[in-house]
Amino acid sequence: MLSSALPTINILKQPTSSAWVEQAISNLDIILLDHAQCERKAAGVALNLIFRYPSNAKMVRELTKIAREELEHFEQVNQWLEDRNIPMRPLTPPPYGAGLKAQIRPKEPDRFLDSLLVSGLIEARSHERLGLLATHCPEPKLAKFYHGLMASEARHYGTYWVLADTYFLREIVAKRLEELAIIESELLVNLHPEPRIHS
Amino acid sequence: MLSSALPTINILKQPTSSAWVEQAISNLDIILLDHAQCERKAAGVALNLIFRYPSNAKMVRELTKIAREELEHFEQVNQWLEDRNIPMRPLTPPPYGAGLKAQIRPKEPDRFLDSLLVSGLIEARSHERLGLLATHCPEPKLAKFYHGLMASEARHYGTYWVLADTYFLREIVAKRLEELAIIESELLVNLHPEPRIHS
Ligand SMILES: [Fe+2]
Ligand SMILES: [Fe+2]
Ligand SMILES: [Fe+2]
Ligand SMILES: [Fe+2]
Repeated sequence: MLSSALPTINILKQPTSSAWVEQAISNLDIILLDHAQCERKAAGVALNLIFRYPSNAKMVRELTKIAREELEHFEQVNQWLEDRNIPMRPLTPPPYGAGLKAQIRPKEPDRFLDSLLVSGLIEARSHERLGLLATHCPEPKLAKFYHGLMASEARHYGTYWVLADTYFLREIVAKRLEELAIIESELLVNLHPEPRIHS
Repeated sequence: MLSSALPTINILKQPTSSAWVEQAISNLDIILLDHAQCERKAAGVALNLIFRYPSNAKMVRELTKIAREELEHFEQVNQWLEDRNIPMRPLTPPPYGAGLKAQIRPKEPDRFLDSLLVSGLIEARSHERLGLLATHCPEPKLAKFYHGLMASEARHYGTYWVLADTYFLREIVAKRLEELAIIESELLVNLHPEPRIHS
């Protein structure tokens, strides 16, 4: 499925600005460092959901697969950091993740639904941005790497959506996803001054 | 390396009692359920260490590998649960894990050293007990499965030890490991009434 056209994920309310693309392409090393953190966090989020809802067998199965894939991506991004002699170091995260997490309603089953949808939206945005990096990155090998990851993130978005649809009524999922998608795009309206995958 | 003799890990101060073996063999389904939780937790612990010490490149590399393997084990144990029609459900953990965790000193770099050594000890004990299950389990296919996992847990113990030895002076590691190993065995002196991997 490595077509060179970008499949679009319709749920994203606003496409990423060209300002983000410019910022990212001018700061590829920092983007790689932040990307490693994103993959690590994606694995952690999947694992946390498994911890919290261990009785949902289908969810456990699907999220275990996602966690394994995210760890594989994490390893691959770390290999890029090593090859470029970029030492691993923590970066301050952009406000995006915390902004979305703040939307998760605390009471069950809302908390479960919102957790799935927020994860899905982050995957959808990652898919879009890795696709932009694949298209605009001036280093062919790195561009190819982003292209390869892009497809997984779209699949992950799909999995989170299917899980939400498994455990909740479709109309409730659709309504809440719509609300969260609007907020997701709003969180990215102003480019964060520090280059990040979700700046 | 699938020799049928049990390689012993010398660090364990007391071997597991035959009472544990009897308890486990009489409760294979509960042991499988608890085992799934152990694998999931092992992945989580490795991931948490990566979160906490992201700049230690060697540790990040090694623990990412461990986390991926633990998730693979988790998947495999879940497959056994599914095949035996055992629904996933949370079990109360035995006091072993919390008892060891309480030994982790809060101040760095003690916390880092203790975290590595506690994880190593849990892996060493898991290795011993999966070996006992491999030897005593009356179902040949399941026994073979335990045999296969056993070797990984010994390797994981080795990795945690090597990491401690990488970031700390060997004599400090040896002294602290000795102290923790004594406590580890003490925590298992009285068989926990509920069958668990670490009861
Ligand atoms: Fe990923
Ligand atoms: Fe993903
Ligand atoms: Fe394991
Ligand atoms: Fe292990």
